[in-house]
Amino acid sequence: MNHVKDFHFWSPTEFVFGRNSEARVGEMLKRYDAKNVLIHYGGGSVVRSGLFDAIITQLDLEGIRYVALGGAKPNPRSSLVYEGIELARRSAVDFVLALGGGSAIDSAKAIAAGAMYPGDFWDFYSQKAVIEHALPIGVVLTIPAAGSEASMSAVITKEETMIKRGLVSRYYRPKFAIINPEQGFSIPRYHLFAGVVDMMSHIFERYLTKTPDVVLTDRMSEAVLKTIIEAARVLKNHPRDYEAMATIFWAGTIAHNGILGVGKDEDWSSHFLEHELSALYDVSHGAGLAVIFPAFMRYTLMEDVMRYRNLAVNVFGVDDDPDDPVNTALRGIETLKSFYREIGMPTHFKELGAQKKDIDRLIDTLRSHRGEVIGSFKKLSMDDVREIYLLATMEDD
Amino acid sequence: MNHVKDFHFWSPTEFVFGRNSEARVGEMLKRYDAKNVLIHYGGGSVVRSGLFDAIITQLDLEGIRYVALGGAKPNPRSSLVYEGIELARRSAVDFVLALGGGSAIDSAKAIAAGAMYPGDFWDFYSQKAVIEHALPIGVVLTIPAAGSEASMSAVITKEETMIKRGLVSRYYRPKFAIINPEQGFSIPRYHLFAGVVDMMSHIFERYLTKTPDVVLTDRMSEAVLKTIIEAARVLKNHPRDYEAMATIFWAGTIAHNGILGVGKDEDWSSHFLEHELSALYDVSHGAGLAVIFPAFMRYTLMEDVMRYRNLAVNVFGVDDDPDDPVNTALRGIETLKSFYREIGMPTHFKELGAQKKDIDRLIDTLRSHRGEVIGSFKKLSMDDVREIYLLATMEDD
Repeated sequence: MNHVKDFHFWSPTEFVFGRNSEARVGEMLKRYDAKNVLIHYGGGSVVRSGLFDAIITQLDLEGIRYVALGGAKPNPRSSLVYEGIELARRSAVDFVLALGGGSAIDSAKAIAAGAMYPGDFWDFYSQKAVIEHALPIGVVLTIPAAGSEASMSAVITKEETMIKRGLVSRYYRPKFAIINPEQGFSIPRYHLFAGVVDMMSHIFERYLTKTPDVVLTDRMSEAVLKTIIEAARVLKNHPRDYEAMATIFWAGTIAHNGILGVGKDEDWSSHFLEHELSALYDVSHGAGLAVIFPAFMRYTLMEDVMRYRNLAVNVFGVDDDPDDPVNTALRGIETLKSFYREIGMPTHFKELGAQKKDIDRLIDTLRSHRGEVIGSFKKLSMDDVREIYLLATMEDD
Repeated sequence: MNHVKDFHFWSPTEFVFGRNSEARVGEMLKRYDAKNVLIHYGGGSVVRSGLFDAIITQLDLEGIRYVALGGAKPNPRSSLVYEGIELARRSAVDFVLALGGGSAIDSAKAIAAGAMYPGDFWDFYSQKAVIEHALPIGVVLTIPAAGSEASMSAVITKEETMIKRGLVSRYYRPKFAIINPEQGFSIPRYHLFAGVVDMMSHIFERYLTKTPDVVLTDRMSEAVLKTIIEAARVLKNHPRDYEAMATIFWAGTIAHNGILGVGKDEDWSSHFLEHELSALYDVSHGAGLAVIFPAFMRYTLMEDVMRYRNLAVNVFGVDDDPDDPVNTALRGIETLKSFYREIGMPTHFKELGAQKKDIDRLIDTLRSHRGEVIGSFKKLSMDDVREIYLLATMEDD
């Protein structure tokens, strides 16, 4: 019987990684024929840190024109995308450069596609249209988490309805990503560790599969997960450790460029459950995932006990109890929760400001966005989803 | 102190992987605007197997013109490259499609660069010129080994002097690679397992580094190596196991696309030692590597005992002797040799037809090609090289 699924893998982004790598943005923009760039960034931190200035200095030197649009925020909103599209058209830009983390990159992607489309960009997100052209996209990464610098997806929230929706397109693969891990030293600790949860979750969503015999990808995933945990622990005690920060940045990139998902069904239901949390309470995506994933794992344990046992032993360092894989697997999940608490992440609903009484509302919006059944590792009905949300409200003993 | 090296990583090749994937070659050629293709392949096996016909049928359907050049052989020769360049120019092709394994792909790459260069393509290999343009390259892979379908390198042997030389260029990255693991079922067993040694060696060359703190890449490398060994053992007993064959094909690709080498110094001296063997005796590259690598490892053991200990424990499954890491490391190397013997590979000079009395000659040509010192894990003088060749002539107890 044949198990490994046929696959398509394409990660064409050119990565320039290391200290002071932002000094090569001019060179990279020229390589990709940019002449008139829309720079899209988030808050004032990239301006205050001098990064924005360092970049426009290079653009000036290279004779590359630009316009800039700030304001990208976590859970990026459609209103800013519309603003960016209008600016891109008005200024006839030929390249979109995102400067920041997942939020800036995701809205830059939507701007890049929307600017080349005569209709409403939300048509792509509501599946009324398919992206057939987009402006080329480049990235100067400042926050390791979302993996959007290498991924083919971008998540946008439509404000009128607060629908948060992801979209996958080959046009969403950035041409280049400049990654200087030193940028990580100025990230507030909470955001850094929320990013750690986010990148781990990108691997979990791919690791938790029903496709058998994908041991090559499984082992690579375990290797990356184990190393993320170690590096995060180093950063907790030594926030300026360059090696650990470099590990976190690169792990975040390969966690989501697709290489850890080849040949198998992926799940992503935990992301869907989390999207409802962060849309309703406007919490950090990573923090929401830290609450959802242990609950999801506990609920789906019996779907593949040995897979959870491998995760416990190979990643979380739990001693194997060969006579009781269920117990080994459960201890793995508890170890993950402990790790999240250790790095200051929430593991319960109430730490997010989320409330048990809102569960019906979360499920109603989830159902309206995704239908009655989600996921592939376990096909979850809305009753299953309720159980997972409930598990996430429970205190540990 | 900062250890991880800055790096540049770019693996833009689009991989189409799975059963019957060759049926998508027409679609992929169109995606990359091919209108007039030089198809370069090796021996008659791709013709006899029907693969060649399957491909030209698609080209005909898509209205893509083509010319074909067969004859690619292991240790690809310059004469065929010259022939291909002439044919490419005469036919004004705009794309080179390699159909085969590393040999066909490597000569296709040299043809693609040479066709766009007014001078002698060997100028690139003798470092008189740098590749600035090349025709786009695509691959339909039939043999997993060389990793050339994803790499930026191509090794060519100049016939007049029998100099075998590799070259690295961003223009050598194929646009796409179509990989159907079922192609592996018709590979003679010896060649298949020589390919296994080759891909493992691509990882060893990167794993054996003096760059500290590259644990993310180390662990991913160990994961791939361990899985290759398991899959090779499955194929030894079940030659038509699709999962194992798919694992071997994909492992061969990622072993050499560069992702397992990011952030560190690589070595490659074992490849240099082997190139002299295969040039002199015309043996399979993989078989030569099976002889050289255990000797190289033994000779360089004390350069980093703990690295070899990790390899022994994490990859070769040796029980750790915490009191004696040297012993653990040595048992790892012995286990590697046993594994090579188990899959029918040579581990001694004489099994290659190589002779102790030729060592001076091997060293003379190596010196003339590479200079007095090679490698980075241990900087090897020609005296060191002699010791390694001598180790490779010794019988086990």
